[in-house]
Amino acid sequence: MEISKKQKAQIITEFGLNVKLQEIDVPEPKSDQVLVNILYTGVCHTDICFMENALSTKKMSLPMVAGHEGAGKVVAVGKDVKNFKIGDKVGVKIINRICGYCENCHTSGRDNNCENQEELITNKFGTFQQYITIAEGEAVKLPENVDLKKAAPLMCAGITVYKGLKETNCQSGEIVAISGASGGLGSFAIQFAKNAGLEVIAIDLGDEKGQHCKDLGADHYLDASKPDLIKRVQEVSNGRGPHGVLVVANAIKAFEDALEYIRNYGVVVAIGVPNQNEFKADLMNIIGRHLTIKGTTLGNRQDFKEGVALLAKGKIDIPVEVRGLSELPEIIQRINNGQIKGRVVLDTSK
Amino acid sequence: MEISKKQKAQIITEFGLNVKLQEIDVPEPKSDQVLVNILYTGVCHTDICFMENALSTKKMSLPMVAGHEGAGKVVAVGKDVKNFKIGDKVGVKIINRICGYCENCHTSGRDNNCENQEELITNKFGTFQQYITIAEGEAVKLPENVDLKKAAPLMCAGITVYKGLKETNCQSGEIVAISGASGGLGSFAIQFAKNAGLEVIAIDLGDEKGQHCKDLGADHYLDASKPDLIKRVQEVSNGRGPHGVLVVANAIKAFEDALEYIRNYGVVVAIGVPNQNEFKADLMNIIGRHLTIKGTTLGNRQDFKEGVALLAKGKIDIPVEVRGLSELPEIIQRINNGQIKGRVVLDTSK
Amino acid sequence: MEISKKQKAQIITEFGLNVKLQEIDVPEPKSDQVLVNILYTGVCHTDICFMENALSTKKMSLPMVAGHEGAGKVVAVGKDVKNFKIGDKVGVKIINRICGYCENCHTSGRDNNCENQEELITNKFGTFQQYITIAEGEAVKLPENVDLKKAAPLMCAGITVYKGLKETNCQSGEIVAISGASGGLGSFAIQFAKNAGLEVIAIDLGDEKGQHCKDLGADHYLDASKPDLIKRVQEVSNGRGPHGVLVVANAIKAFEDALEYIRNYGVVVAIGVPNQNEFKADLMNIIGRHLTIKGTTLGNRQDFKEGVALLAKGKIDIPVEVRGLSELPEIIQRINNGQIKGRVVLDTSK
Amino acid sequence: MEISKKQKAQIITEFGLNVKLQEIDVPEPKSDQVLVNILYTGVCHTDICFMENALSTKKMSLPMVAGHEGAGKVVAVGKDVKNFKIGDKVGVKIINRICGYCENCHTSGRDNNCENQEELITNKFGTFQQYITIAEGEAVKLPENVDLKKAAPLMCAGITVYKGLKETNCQSGEIVAISGASGGLGSFAIQFAKNAGLEVIAIDLGDEKGQHCKDLGADHYLDASKPDLIKRVQEVSNGRGPHGVLVVANAIKAFEDALEYIRNYGVVVAIGVPNQNEFKADLMNIIGRHLTIKGTTLGNRQDFKEGVALLAKGKIDIPVEVRGLSELPEIIQRINNGQIKGRVVLDTSK
Repeated sequence: MEISKKQKAQIITEFGLNVKLQEIDVPEPKSDQVLVNILYTGVCHTDICFMENALSTKKMSLPMVAGHEGAGKVVAVGKDVKNFKIGDKVGVKIINRICGYCENCHTSGRDNNCENQEELITNKFGTFQQYITIAEGEAVKLPENVDLKKAAPLMCAGITVYKGLKETNCQSGEIVAISGASGGLGSFAIQFAKNAGLEVIAIDLGDEKGQHCKDLGADHYLDASKPDLIKRVQEVSNGRGPHGVLVVANAIKAFEDALEYIRNYGVVVAIGVPNQNEFKADLMNIIGRHLTIKGTTLGNRQDFKEGVALLAKGKIDIPVEVRGLSELPEIIQRINNGQIKGRVVLDTSK
Repeated sequence: MEISKKQKAQIITEFGLNVKLQEIDVPEPKSDQVLVNILYTGVCHTDICFMENALSTKKMSLPMVAGHEGAGKVVAVGKDVKNFKIGDKVGVKIINRICGYCENCHTSGRDNNCENQEELITNKFGTFQQYITIAEGEAVKLPENVDLKKAAPLMCAGITVYKGLKETNCQSGEIVAISGASGGLGSFAIQFAKNAGLEVIAIDLGDEKGQHCKDLGADHYLDASKPDLIKRVQEVSNGRGPHGVLVVANAIKAFEDALEYIRNYGVVVAIGVPNQNEFKADLMNIIGRHLTIKGTTLGNRQDFKEGVALLAKGKIDIPVEVRGLSELPEIIQRINNGQIKGRVVLDTSK
Repeated sequence: MEISKKQKAQIITEFGLNVKLQEIDVPEPKSDQVLVNILYTGVCHTDICFMENALSTKKMSLPMVAGHEGAGKVVAVGKDVKNFKIGDKVGVKIINRICGYCENCHTSGRDNNCENQEELITNKFGTFQQYITIAEGEAVKLPENVDLKKAAPLMCAGITVYKGLKETNCQSGEIVAISGASGGLGSFAIQFAKNAGLEVIAIDLGDEKGQHCKDLGADHYLDASKPDLIKRVQEVSNGRGPHGVLVVANAIKAFEDALEYIRNYGVVVAIGVPNQNEFKADLMNIIGRHLTIKGTTLGNRQDFKEGVALLAKGKIDIPVEVRGLSELPEIIQRINNGQIKGRVVLDTSK
Repeated sequence: MEISKKQKAQIITEFGLNVKLQEIDVPEPKSDQVLVNILYTGVCHTDICFMENALSTKKMSLPMVAGHEGAGKVVAVGKDVKNFKIGDKVGVKIINRICGYCENCHTSGRDNNCENQEELITNKFGTFQQYITIAEGEAVKLPENVDLKKAAPLMCAGITVYKGLKETNCQSGEIVAISGASGGLGSFAIQFAKNAGLEVIAIDLGDEKGQHCKDLGADHYLDASKPDLIKRVQEVSNGRGPHGVLVVANAIKAFEDALEYIRNYGVVVAIGVPNQNEFKADLMNIIGRHLTIKGTTLGNRQDFKEGVALLAKGKIDIPVEVRGLSELPEIIQRINNGQIKGRVVLDTSK
């Protein structure tokens, strides 16, 4: 099989949303890497943050290719690679290599925070391109029956909420609220939660998103733009509130509200990038009601293994809108305007 | 054995610190209660909050007898009591009866938040008196070798921090910071932490309290009134911060600081009554560093059983200053002025 | 409302299966008890063990009324009862009162092993009668919409396996094997497991029971009477075996086999009364493969609360065959012959 | 610095204990490996099992160099190594490389059971030699202040029991029994347990070993060769038995006894190689008393990190007898005769 020497990529050369489709070289895999032909890539609001250099926690450099959830096929393997062969389906996550010796690598379950990781966007080009090299341990093996269009957004949005739901400690039969339920993360969260036997309160802005959430399996939908959200959440949960809340909405108010409507002893899990960093809360509310707040990002390799297994079993299936890589500028505009339900996935060949 | 019909109690008839030593009736035990002669009672800053009606979360009534950590002996038992006999040593905690059927009673480990509990201070008179009745299931059995002077402050201060340390998830060999380490709660916390094999960073205000903390076993002492606390905490913990923090200080800043110096993936446990309710924090710090915040109060019956066992084995021994019940007004003043290290315990016979 | 002074009960006066339907007095509730009119009672293989005095771990006395899973309505309440009123639906479990002060009562999650419990069969008459008194804390509150015929077998069979599944530590997406899947316990287990998002391998004897298991939602059915069970279990679980096994079959071989086909790091949970006590196993298999074996009985009050909630939400619905209390002798014979799928429930009015 | 091309090793060329000191080549590190000069190596009973090819679970080949717990210094590093430099102290464990992509590598906390690991003894020569190459992620970093003689036996005996104690779930104040307490594993176990605040019941054969166990900190010593062990264990634990048992003795009876004297709800953890594989137990005892049995081997990278930290802090210090590598044949004889307390460590330069 002949591999192209050149590929297309959506590049920016100054911070901002002005991407340009350019031709760049296809990289060559090192001895322990696979070369992946990225066939599909999700587009996430965080990509906009990357391009606008808006994250205090990440050090960006230029030129940049954003995109951090991809899926494709192995087209070449380094000489020491044992776990992949040409033609295998593979997921591309933001972490492409871990060191294996730092505090996080040597602490169970923290590999996704390797202190010396090779990371898309900050270290190398992201998934808004056609080819990428990945160390075999971090390439995500996908079973043959998986639809790559569906697998791409699992690589960040899906696994992040899968992990977040675990962190709520909710068990089958209990109630979880998902704040910001209609977007990419929220859509996955509804399905993972229903699959785990949870009762789901979906919360988002506007009536219109309710049908989308119900179609995905939500038991209740509440419009956060209407008054008395806290009271309404408690009304649909026996007056006591949900056992856990997963906040994927980017409004800081969504997080602050969750601390009010959560049940005594409940867990509020915060995920994703809020539109402002500072929040205010009542410490006596947290102490007296025995609340827990947890922050989490992405998921570790075990989470990926489990999430992929659920996708392969057909338990998870969120709607995706497929567009071409060349259409990225338009998609960015729509994300900025909050006009997307579920996830847009780009076909990199178009 | 003759039981006195009358007893002394430190009563307030209007909210404030103006206690008056008066003679009141000794109560009679119901069929499932023990009558306890309280020999010693701790005095806690929260008693002042009770007397000043300063807690938004509790509904106080008058007249009031404060005091919520006592120890004494059984002097009479109701006809259905099987677990206690006259002469047994017994601890008095704030909860004196639980219902056995509410959501918290029927959720493992939450008995101390029974929704229908009989509670000192709000439901009945507290431990600044000589006799009290308690349902046998909530009377805390104390082994014969226990020193009642030492047992009294365990009944709130001690068990609260014992539970709080559990909630940090720190395990032997890890580092815990105790913020507000020199007071009653902090002193117990240092000892429980050392007994569990933790490395302890004690934090409090002023140099002088350092020796007290070191004497109790703290590995490090840091004066929070000096600059750069966050940097100094990290310096004594390999540049990474402690794995857990127990905040017993009542300054809200102590809690906010903890979110800065805590290690990645660390747990900050908040306990006790802060001097103001509202705090501010950076949500991206919590998300990006995978932090956990937990609130907790007191401990459940298992925590009491375990804490008492450690006291009886001699693993816990904090310094107490013994005074008479009649000296309560002076003690209240000293607590208000922050002039107490460890705990003051009142002999109710004096 | 008039309560009958007399009721019917299926009594034995010597150990064995020779029950006699007799008229006995209706008990009166103490101040903290409810009087329940048992409308339906399950019949379980363990009732036969009780009647035959075949359990080394229980001390039986005569006369005996067996039966330990009932459901009915409150017909009278003691003067201190607050949580129930006449007409409320209520479940009857084997434990009717706990002491509130023993090691198990004071250890979180162990209330169902109270060391001084009032227990059906050994302490008092069981559910093969029409009326029973229960301390309010141990009477199981049932929502109004619950079908009492379905609730009765939940009170032992259902909750026991609900708890057992928790003990396997399996999470959504993982594989659990249920050994002895077609009986009362197994039928509940299949449904609880599916509701928690698990993949279920049902194992029982004979082809015929397969359809019953599949109807309840099992993903796979394997006939243990055919050769090479261990190999076949692994074949349907990617060659690795299930993550957890719940053994409810009474053949000791079923337990021994589970230790062979379980996945590395897996958990085998044993429940119920085996037909012989002694088993043999290979310790190197347990050590080298990091296996866990756990024993469990019934469930605690939290398990009951959660299990009842799932029943009320309609998540659990096993087929029951309804017969009259007078037909008990025939049902006992059929159970002894292994001729029952799901559960037989007796209408105590017939 | 010049590295010798040749080194000494204790080799066998047929299965059995007939080791021969020979000169072999010093290996060269690959790009991601360090070359370690092993200065000290522990000698363990399992080395004898390896040499006699007595383990059904491991596939041995010849020639063989046994030894699987070493400590030394880095003398050369591959070009991609970032975490080590020449002169660093380093521990040598049985696992020298993991694949990073198998089920165990991708399951949190199971890296020590990598399915494609490079392993001492079966894949390559063990620590009864002077030089070894290790992938940097699996080389155990030792702080500069660590005594290498003490660090060597930590690399298997120490970490294995550190992990085993975790698996008992015992917390500070609870009681753990260590069966086989005087040997290398048991000696470490006593110290780790005491450091975690546990009360320790040491059990071994003969009176003489009692002093050794007491010197290490055991609270109680019981001679298992005398009658009524089960009764005596319960006598020193309030009639209830220890909360956990760590069985490191190789007699199968030691494991069977533990299931009798363990407390209700207790955990029996089995470690190491029993003298026979098959045990018998009473399943009703396990079910009715809610017991847990767990098997475990070695520890994962987190366990190593934590165990090394405790050694570096001076919390762990077991007596070692230092001999020369050339004296291995005599040491093997003494181990076979059960004549060693604590651990023998060989100086490979002698």
